[in-house]
Amino acid sequence: MRMYLECIPCMFNQGIFAARQAELSPEGQKEVLDALACLVPRISMKASPPEIAVEVYRVIREKTGLVDPFAAVKRESNENALAVYPEMLRRVKGSVDPLSLAVQIAISGNIIDYGANIRIDLKEEICRILDEEASAIAGEEKRLFDLEAFRSALSAAREILYIGDNAGEIVFDRVLIETLLRLYPDVTIRYAVRGEPIINDVTLEDALAVGMDRVCEVVDSGSPAPGAVPALCSPAFRRLLETADLIISKGQGNYEALSGTDYPVFCLLRVKCPVIAADIPAHLGDVCLFRAEARKV
Amino acid sequence: MRMYLECIPCMFNQGIFAARQAELSPEGQKEVLDALACLVPRISMKASPPEIAVEVYRVIREKTGLVDPFAAVKRESNENALAVYPEMLRRVKGSVDPLSLAVQIAISGNIIDYGANIRIDLKEEICRILDEEASAIAGEEKRLFDLEAFRSALSAAREILYIGDNAGEIVFDRVLIETLLRLYPDVTIRYAVRGEPIINDVTLEDALAVGMDRVCEVVDSGSPAPGAVPALCSPAFRRLLETADLIISKGQGNYEALSGTDYPVFCLLRVKCPVIAADIPAHLGDVCLFRAEARKV
Repeated sequence: MRMYLECIPCMFNQGIFAARQAELSPEGQKEVLDALACLVPRISMKASPPEIAVEVYRVIREKTGLVDPFAAVKRESNENALAVYPEMLRRVKGSVDPLSLAVQIAISGNIIDYGANIRIDLKEEICRILDEEASAIAGEEKRLFDLEAFRSALSAAREILYIGDNAGEIVFDRVLIETLLRLYPDVTIRYAVRGEPIINDVTLEDALAVGMDRVCEVVDSGSPAPGAVPALCSPAFRRLLETADLIISKGQGNYEALSGTDYPVFCLLRVKCPVIAADIPAHLGDVCLFRAEARKV
Repeated sequence: MRMYLECIPCMFNQGIFAARQAELSPEGQKEVLDALACLVPRISMKASPPEIAVEVYRVIREKTGLVDPFAAVKRESNENALAVYPEMLRRVKGSVDPLSLAVQIAISGNIIDYGANIRIDLKEEICRILDEEASAIAGEEKRLFDLEAFRSALSAAREILYIGDNAGEIVFDRVLIETLLRLYPDVTIRYAVRGEPIINDVTLEDALAVGMDRVCEVVDSGSPAPGAVPALCSPAFRRLLETADLIISKGQGNYEALSGTDYPVFCLLRVKCPVIAADIPAHLGDVCLFRAEARKV
């Protein structure tokens, strides 16, 4: 997905959020926005939003002096999600359709974004999913939820590349991955993380913190962006993109990075921004599961 | 009210909206944002948002080549509002509390902002107000609605300065002004417009188009901003601000311009942005009537 004009004001909102997260003074916060403004004329509308985000967060890092202003938020997300992990796994194991429930749980975890209202959203979302299982997410939020196509793709796959998105959410991914490995014992799954900290995206540190390495192989995409933009990934990771039978792409950033490619990508995401809603197309709030390139018209 | 950091991303959203309104190409739209970005480092956070808006819309005018990209939208707003004017006036005259209903109608007109969804909002809003009269606007949207203080101020006033906000909304203002002149026959009311076109704000042309000049004296504030910022108004208008017994300030832009002053200002507005909601403080969507300086703590 290419940049939309609306991504530019959003850049400034992200700057405000990150500057406050870093506890800068009001003057320091304004300086972050001034520096972001200097980027705007250099932004190519042919780039994808995660590519531009690399520049945006470089500016934020320079101005805040913090390599990872979201470190504490990420740790807290992981801990909160781990607290509900045993219950999630127990429910999935007891479900009449474990795949359906595990997919919904994994997508529900995608509501953890930018560290806002983590605890409240998480709790509400998990109750909603677990208490009513597959019927929990109302039909109108699942207009684009092609579970049967996903089931077929899983049956045919040997090598699955699962590209993670955010801290906290990674625990929900672990529930889905454990379920996949139980239902499809012959597949190999690799879980990919970002190459360095950006926003609240998963890195190797998060994968180790939530025990993902005890479930499947964890690989570093090399991407410094909040999305696995192929051109920004390591050569080794690009080979994995090319050889995987099935790529599970979590969240908006990976959708933005991979939706224009020919890889066999299934997107699992919660629609949280109007630009993405228009691009898919879907509605704000939708819980989506779809084959990416099948969406291109 | 001073600038908040959140006003900066909002500037860019306004730029996108105006550039599309002017039917610029995607490249032209991006050029508007590039030019706005150059403004950011020069923005003082001690200025009020309407002062900055003057600079923002100067850039938009230069880039679009249009003095008034909202001219057609404004005409349409006025015509749509005039179509319901006779019915509004009839209902107010037949109401048990004409002042209360006329005030609510005037504030409901403040939903006409930036020309978005004019027809739908207008129709819904007017039905809601007229069909159920004073009870129409739910209690929780009127947390800050001090009608009794406004009634007292009206009883004590001789010279009222009514500062208009948007095209279309001006017809709703006319209903309130006619009601005030009937209930308080000894008062003099002057209706103030902006000094030049900016966004969809009222100018002399709108006042004449809706017959405001047949109801009361129409005065030019001289303000080039979307708010009567005293320093940007004409000396003649500043004298009116100083001599009025009561200033009726419509909308967010005038609130931003006048809320820090000592003038006897009553604000009538619909809260449409989270920054204003935090500043008043009130909630998004609230229908507000309050004495401005009484809100300062």
